[in-house]
Amino acid sequence: MASNVKSAMLSKAVSKYINSLQVKKYRNQHQAFVVEGAKSVTELLHSDFQLQHLFITADFEKEHRQELLGLAYDIATEQELVKAGTFASNNAALAVASIPNLPPLQVKPSDLVIALDDIRDPGNLGTIIRIADWYGIDTVICSENCADFYNPKVISATMGSFTRVKVHYVNLEEWVKQHTDHVQIYGASLAGDNIHTMQLEPTGVILMGNEANGIRPAVSQHLNHLLKIPAFGQAESLNVATATAIIVDNFRRHTS
Amino acid sequence: MASNVKSAMLSKAVSKYINSLQVKKYRNQHQAFVVEGAKSVTELLHSDFQLQHLFITADFEKEHRQELLGLAYDIATEQELVKAGTFASNNAALAVASIPNLPPLQVKPSDLVIALDDIRDPGNLGTIIRIADWYGIDTVICSENCADFYNPKVISATMGSFTRVKVHYVNLEEWVKQHTDHVQIYGASLAGDNIHTMQLEPTGVILMGNEANGIRPAVSQHLNHLLKIPAFGQAESLNVATATAIIVDNFRRHTS
Repeated sequence: MASNVKSAMLSKAVSKYINSLQVKKYRNQHQAFVVEGAKSVTELLHSDFQLQHLFITADFEKEHRQELLGLAYDIATEQELVKAGTFASNNAALAVASIPNLPPLQVKPSDLVIALDDIRDPGNLGTIIRIADWYGIDTVICSENCADFYNPKVISATMGSFTRVKVHYVNLEEWVKQHTDHVQIYGASLAGDNIHTMQLEPTGVILMGNEANGIRPAVSQHLNHLLKIPAFGQAESLNVATATAIIVDNFRRHTS
Repeated sequence: MASNVKSAMLSKAVSKYINSLQVKKYRNQHQAFVVEGAKSVTELLHSDFQLQHLFITADFEKEHRQELLGLAYDIATEQELVKAGTFASNNAALAVASIPNLPPLQVKPSDLVIALDDIRDPGNLGTIIRIADWYGIDTVICSENCADFYNPKVISATMGSFTRVKVHYVNLEEWVKQHTDHVQIYGASLAGDNIHTMQLEPTGVILMGNEANGIRPAVSQHLNHLLKIPAFGQAESLNVATATAIIVDNFRRHTS
């Protein structure tokens, strides 16, 4: 006989724990982060990240039997997933994964890398990580005051690319100063050279600055080149993720 | 003597009216829309749009005396602006402007135009309008089920470019069918030709499809060309605004 008492598969304690991971302090303390939605969780299951918890709806279970083989998971309702996570709706899945240790950051002169100075908006950071992944860039270097990679909004905006792109946080001023001799570092600036007429090769560091203020002078003084996207109309600026995409495309187009 | 009764400069009735303009039905009924924030309102004041209401903070008044000359406006508090509008904070300005009549849509073979099939996200539409403005494109054609240009989120995401770019809503399937003979219409598609190796000139219509489903077959069957942004990594897709920016840049780069 069916019971009227519905046992919550996602207990209050676990739901509270998952909620706490919206805050960086608790992500650091537990070395864990949250992944939500069908696309992101599916990519997570295909990656090397270690799962701490996996909650899925009965529908998601049916559609992903193959990927779920050998995994521990619990069935949860859409309401439980929404309560535990940050999405307004989630009829698929929510996972908690361990924050992995990154290998040390090493950039060779032949690498193509994106560096970000003080990108505050999680959506922008996530979109830039997705762009990096599209263009085969596996390293993004962030100044320490950028949005946190493991912020649920960043993870969500990467559309699964968080599983492939390594994001390193560094003292960007120091890092640029130390690398400018042997790696070409290009900064996006309205005062730079026109990317359409420069002969760009797909190597070096593409450095993008803060949404409102651009690259800090302390950083930009060490750059090898400044470059700009020429304006043909009257808009004052482009969104930083949009600008990153256009610049990376100009670096990559000669390898097509 | 200072009175304890603070007279609301932004009356309840007007605040309610402005609230109602968040809904398309009421924007159409009143032929009016809302503009919020320092950047957007300043661009509005520099444009030909007709003002119905203008509420500004005392600080905004001080900083924009020149632009405000000859204009009717009322001083409002930040709380009043937030209550009337959609922003979480607004210490600058809020305006209600009349929706203008557009001149008839005419596209010549020498024009560069963006067309959008079923772009649902207001942020994406606004960002695309900003990109159009950056690249000197003054016409965006939308299918009837795209997000509404006068949605406050669209206006806000354009960062002032709503004052320069004309957005036309049409039956896109019919429009494409009627124009494909004398205007080159390019559709973004994962099955298209590589934009990096095509010889693109800055003329024609760049047509982008829905965030999840791309261009509807009923529309894409009439296109002259399909084009794609080559992938160098493993991301499955790019955000539609990001993709629009990259494609437009590839059309424009030969005029730099």
